[in-house]
Amino acid sequence: MPLRLSHLFLRTLRDNPADAEVASHQLLVRAGYIRRAAPGVYTWLPLGLTVLRKIEEIVREEMHRIGAQEVHFPALLPKEPYEATGRWDDYGDGIFRLKDRKEADYLLAPTHEEVFTLLVKDLYSSYKDLPLSIYQIQTKYRDEARPRAGLLRGREFIMKDSYSFALTEEDQRAAYDDHRAAYLRIFDRLGLPVVPVNAVSGAMGGSASEEFLFPCDIGEDTFVESDGGFRANVEAVTTPTPEPIDHTNLPAAQVHHTPGTDTIATLVDAANTHQPREDREWTAADTLKNVVVAAVLPDGSRRIVVLGVPGDRDVDLKRAEATIGGIIGVGGEVALEAANEADLKKNPGLVRGYIGPGLSLDAPVLGAQGSTGITYLVDPRVVAGSSWITGANEADQHVFGLVAGRDFGWDGIIEAVVVQEGDPAPDGSGPLRTRRGIEMGHIFHLGTRYAEALGLQVLDVNGKLATVTMGSYGFGVTRALAAIAEATHDEKGLIWPAAIAPADVHLVATGKGDEVYAAAESLITQLEDAGLSVIYDDRPKVSPGVKFGDAELLGVPMLVTVGRGLKNGTIELKDRRSGESHEVAVDEAAAAVLEHVKGLQNLKGAR
Amino acid sequence: MPLRLSHLFLRTLRDNPADAEVASHQLLVRAGYIRRAAPGVYTWLPLGLTVLRKIEEIVREEMHRIGAQEVHFPALLPKEPYEATGRWDDYGDGIFRLKDRKEADYLLAPTHEEVFTLLVKDLYSSYKDLPLSIYQIQTKYRDEARPRAGLLRGREFIMKDSYSFALTEEDQRAAYDDHRAAYLRIFDRLGLPVVPVNAVSGAMGGSASEEFLFPCDIGEDTFVESDGGFRANVEAVTTPTPEPIDHTNLPAAQVHHTPGTDTIATLVDAANTHQPREDREWTAADTLKNVVVAAVLPDGSRRIVVLGVPGDRDVDLKRAEATIGGIIGVGGEVALEAANEADLKKNPGLVRGYIGPGLSLDAPVLGAQGSTGITYLVDPRVVAGSSWITGANEADQHVFGLVAGRDFGWDGIIEAVVVQEGDPAPDGSGPLRTRRGIEMGHIFHLGTRYAEALGLQVLDVNGKLATVTMGSYGFGVTRALAAIAEATHDEKGLIWPAAIAPADVHLVATGKGDEVYAAAESLITQLEDAGLSVIYDDRPKVSPGVKFGDAELLGVPMLVTVGRGLKNGTIELKDRRSGESHEVAVDEAAAAVLEHVKGLQNLKGAR
Repeated sequence: MPLRLSHLFLRTLRDNPADAEVASHQLLVRAGYIRRAAPGVYTWLPLGLTVLRKIEEIVREEMHRIGAQEVHFPALLPKEPYEATGRWDDYGDGIFRLKDRKEADYLLAPTHEEVFTLLVKDLYSSYKDLPLSIYQIQTKYRDEARPRAGLLRGREFIMKDSYSFALTEEDQRAAYDDHRAAYLRIFDRLGLPVVPVNAVSGAMGGSASEEFLFPCDIGEDTFVESDGGFRANVEAVTTPTPEPIDHTNLPAAQVHHTPGTDTIATLVDAANTHQPREDREWTAADTLKNVVVAAVLPDGSRRIVVLGVPGDRDVDLKRAEATIGGIIGVGGEVALEAANEADLKKNPGLVRGYIGPGLSLDAPVLGAQGSTGITYLVDPRVVAGSSWITGANEADQHVFGLVAGRDFGWDGIIEAVVVQEGDPAPDGSGPLRTRRGIEMGHIFHLGTRYAEALGLQVLDVNGKLATVTMGSYGFGVTRALAAIAEATHDEKGLIWPAAIAPADVHLVATGKGDEVYAAAESLITQLEDAGLSVIYDDRPKVSPGVKFGDAELLGVPMLVTVGRGLKNGTIELKDRRSGESHEVAVDEAAAAVLEHVKGLQNLKGAR
Repeated sequence: MPLRLSHLFLRTLRDNPADAEVASHQLLVRAGYIRRAAPGVYTWLPLGLTVLRKIEEIVREEMHRIGAQEVHFPALLPKEPYEATGRWDDYGDGIFRLKDRKEADYLLAPTHEEVFTLLVKDLYSSYKDLPLSIYQIQTKYRDEARPRAGLLRGREFIMKDSYSFALTEEDQRAAYDDHRAAYLRIFDRLGLPVVPVNAVSGAMGGSASEEFLFPCDIGEDTFVESDGGFRANVEAVTTPTPEPIDHTNLPAAQVHHTPGTDTIATLVDAANTHQPREDREWTAADTLKNVVVAAVLPDGSRRIVVLGVPGDRDVDLKRAEATIGGIIGVGGEVALEAANEADLKKNPGLVRGYIGPGLSLDAPVLGAQGSTGITYLVDPRVVAGSSWITGANEADQHVFGLVAGRDFGWDGIIEAVVVQEGDPAPDGSGPLRTRRGIEMGHIFHLGTRYAEALGLQVLDVNGKLATVTMGSYGFGVTRALAAIAEATHDEKGLIWPAAIAPADVHLVATGKGDEVYAAAESLITQLEDAGLSVIYDDRPKVSPGVKFGDAELLGVPMLVTVGRGLKNGTIELKDRRSGESHEVAVDEAAAAVLEHVKGLQNLKGAR
């Protein structure tokens, strides 16, 4: 039975919905695939659900292929396991919490490490049971601060999450590699070009991980790559640490009156005018910029931190966020934001525009030992012996030649600046290029963090209890659907890869005679007998223009028109992606359509 | 590929879990189908998930057959639509509510009438678009006061819920009838004998509805049936109202001293001893028992009500609950419970053991006009002119010959007593039998309640706005799985109908020689080539007894053993349900298994 547009629960929209900014979001709503139910929460209409199920099935097949077994956990989970690992607090505002009628605490799970760990603990007890990979395709929840871009960042979404359990590093590595290969096959079948990049693991607490990014201008993640093959999320890029500089012969630091130089640009100008160097001009890279930020801790409190970075670099809060928790010794997700007026008022020791670490190691201003007591973290380029122009902690005063390690110290080192085009790759493989992407999947070596917190041990081959090593592997199912729409649309609408299109063929009947509809029905019968699925636009009083427009908006890759040509004995076949069309004789139409669909299915991303 | 027990994520348990009281719950946990995650919240293990998916697929096929289209709504929904229909408050403690980071109110939806209505309003605008039936198979939430019996009454569970939209009563009736027929087909395919019974609709606000009950001793619902074909939930049984009795010649009521008669039994004894009748003995049916109950309103407040019922009847709080809201003019779900000490203390006008409506219409005690002001509702048998022995509102005093309508009145009539075996069917079709059952599905004519509250109107054929008429149709998917387990198990374990069994064949290999495993693998290949699915117990160091025990516990209907018989060239086939077994020659085994499985599939409940 074809999907008849005369009866399909569908309404296409001519205009973009007001709240939709990215193309995939606009088109999925306009083409009647999804509908907004609340911010970041969507309803699936019949066509959307069909595509979603096809993606899920591909994921399931590839999980099955690596021997992962499917289970299904609740979304509503009790607090206790998440409290045992610290994540109940770590997630801060990022998860939905609720209480039942007995005032017991629950959450809507954003990810399921804890309960997978407990389930394995519950069922298994011996090394003979391992290695094990289990997964689910399940609805997850995150209370995103800014749900955006439709399905790309929602608050209720579907993920495939797998977890592997092993006793040896070797088995865990194999499970990781299996998942990595499965992910690459899934993306290949979905026609989504992704790049795996090294990543840090944030709140998951893993020891190694990779992200699969779909390169895309609207992506929220920035990654870098070098010609030599280095690829990483910017959060995972480390700066090659310069060798310490011998500062034996450097002159003592000198404070200069530098009126009206509360920006790097005005400071560099003033330096070149009033304190010129002989060998070259001063540049922003000679200055040490001290940026005041507020770390918002999982419990909601704010902690002020100063970041000391070369003046030619901007601070990348997201990158700093990825590691600051570990550096300042706070567990859980720490959010970084620019300090606000209230933060600055509470810290009158910070002279805006003229902040510096202090003029000597005997009289530090920043840092735990400083007069302000404010944590001071510096960029790796602030290496011992490097010499800087920086604030002297008095209005209109800067100090020149302040030498790191000789004149000032710091509480820690942090990767906190924007990675720039041309920065060196950490592995020496050449200069980096930066690109934006959407995170489609993420695989982690978790190590023993969860197993230790929840007591997952099994008897090893010697009969001794051993702690299990784990991996976790996330794949955004609903996000993949949106990313594919993002990757393959044109100005007329969606263009699905054949593997996940809501139907194999979109057949439009136009014209008034009964013979048009009879010919269409006859062709559909032949196509369905051959195993194809058909969307059939049989609407009697709708103009051909509207029908063609809808067909292009809906995005089935193979379009067939039974209409005007019929009096000449022909039917039109059109490839949605290329726009190429040709007429075929009525009695050759079914064979021609079949052949074309087979061709589409053999394309990359359409198997 | 068979499911190899050597690798399947499964652990069977010998003992019943401590929290499991009913057989389906015990066996589903012991056989490794489900695992408790929190009270009323379960995790699905691989075998359970397979059975669940098969049930879902049967439901989907039957929905598709009646032209219902599948969509999928979020579980997390904003408060506003539910506030518009009043259900946000009506549900009282029965739903999970939560707030997002912006303090906006959300709920985990227990049922989706509101958002289905809004979706249709959003997409459709003309009579041409109707009738329409749409459905989802989706995870639902209810904060049950007493989650129990495993999947039979959970807090997170899967339902299929459909909704029909029509402009005419006729179309709505057709959608209702289609769903009714689809449900009967589904239950038939699942092998679950259900009876459709008339029901009242509780908080759903419908005007007519039927429940599909699976008759079962552990069921929470009581229903009745007559030989003449009447069937109803007890909440929906109405008492044939007796004709008013001419009380012209009845003597005036008389108060008698009846010491120590604060129970019906002692009162009847005292009456027969001290105030004997001439024509016959007094019985409990001659007394009017006034039972104090507390109605807990959706806002949590308690309202005291007295129920006046014949002394030979017990009060059925659940039955009274079904209608009391409407009678006392309170919307939403009203819970009834026995009055507690505090309730009675607050109402000193109620003399325990001697409560009555008052001695004359001029001096009422109970009722809105009475000295207590307490709402007084009476059983339909308390018809005008009927004469009663009842409390005189003083300790040790009863009034005899108190005539309804002449001496006392009431605020309303309520069906509040237990329906008994032998009570007449409301339609005159004979005496009723009572049975217990589990509600498996529920279908409602909703009328225009939701469409009116949410403004769902479309243009009718004359171009005028008309309000849409709706129906809603629930089917408990996870509950069905448990009910099937309940219906078909034996003392050894589960016995699945072939249509939803986790595999077609459970093959046990026993013995030590390689030839056993080689013969098993060879048979499996033949069975899989013929399209059968196989669970293969290939565990090398597990005893035959354990393997057979697990096979019977897991409940695949066709058991095959490759073992001892092999040296004589035979393989054993066994029917799990009948326990009958026979040996077949190795080279005829595949054909014999196929034939047996086909036979099982042709059984009722296995198509």
